[in-house]
Amino acid sequence: MPLVQIDVPALLAPERVRALADAVHDALVATVGVPPADRFQVIRRHQSGDLLVDPAYLGIARGPEAVIVAIAFRRGRTDEQKRALYRAIAAGAALEAELRPEDVMVVLTENGPADWSFGRGVAQYAAEAVPA
Amino acid sequence: MPLVQIDVPALLAPERVRALADAVHDALVATVGVPPADRFQVIRRHQSGDLLVDPAYLGIARGPEAVIVAIAFRRGRTDEQKRALYRAIAAGAALEAELRPEDVMVVLTENGPADWSFGRGVAQYAAEAVPA
Amino acid sequence: MPLVQIDVPALLAPERVRALADAVHDALVATVGVPPADRFQVIRRHQSGDLLVDPAYLGIARGPEAVIVAIAFRRGRTDEQKRALYRAIAAGAALEAELRPEDVMVVLTENGPADWSFGRGVAQYAAEAVPA
Repeated sequence: MPLVQIDVPALLAPERVRALADAVHDALVATVGVPPADRFQVIRRHQSGDLLVDPAYLGIARGPEAVIVAIAFRRGRTDEQKRALYRAIAAGAALEAELRPEDVMVVLTENGPADWSFGRGVAQYAAEAVPA
Repeated sequence: MPLVQIDVPALLAPERVRALADAVHDALVATVGVPPADRFQVIRRHQSGDLLVDPAYLGIARGPEAVIVAIAFRRGRTDEQKRALYRAIAAGAALEAELRPEDVMVVLTENGPADWSFGRGVAQYAAEAVPA
Repeated sequence: MPLVQIDVPALLAPERVRALADAVHDALVATVGVPPADRFQVIRRHQSGDLLVDPAYLGIARGPEAVIVAIAFRRGRTDEQKRALYRAIAAGAALEAELRPEDVMVVLTENGPADWSFGRGVAQYAAEAVPA
């Protein structure tokens, strides 16, 4: 269910971008109950100047490798689960993609069960009630 | 009003991508009351590896032509309208763009009337009250 | 905090795109209380045909330079603040990027304090409570 959009600078090697995408998915599975097979990700590479990230907001020193991870999923996760998700993404991105934790921004958007169709024209999480 | 973002693999011929975009718009008009002239769509083509779609989640067999359609519109549609929208998008994508229904994912995001400006710096759906 | 995504036609000169991005940020700072250093923007350039904008919806004449600005920020802004934001973006885009006000569309999406991590794996706007 999550739809994950990952914006990265073009200077990041493809292997590191893929490792980041893997780390984000693994974090979703580990912390907020996403099934392992529920992986839908869009990666976008940007030339310098098209990915603008403040180098110091909130006292965090961001560099040229900074990435933005935007995740849409259903409402229902607690704040604590979201905090665990952020920790897991930052840790995985560091370990697997060699990204500095300062360079990983995450933004969440929530919607409802009827807002997802995974194919075949059906709202799989909000299937039509069968009349008695 | 809907803002539609369509992520497609680069291997899809431009004519089929355009047919998909037409089908999505026609489905919005037919099922959830979008005016025919209210068409705003962004299409993004991705190299293999930048559009990651699980090949089997929920028992749906997705292939190399899988697309993701993300639609933002105002709150207020019922679950039944959303189900009709999914059916119409899948049917239209099959008929007009020759896409398998298994390869069409749709994700909705909702916002409010004041969240849209269609130009001229005005919130057309939430215009300022005129003092008496 | 806002995450700003700006979709522009490839025919817009890079200097004008950058001026638009500056104008959007300045408007956020001036009208809805965004700190000057809180700037996170993604710019995407599109070939003709991949950015579909109706040329007349709601009586607004849009042309080949039409852009779409999508902004995600925390809930809490009033409708009046949003109206001021739209006015400021349109005015700044005209003055700094020479864009017609008719060619500037803005769409907002809102989320909550726990939905943002600005780096280091922490939810900066919803930090964990310290036990007494």
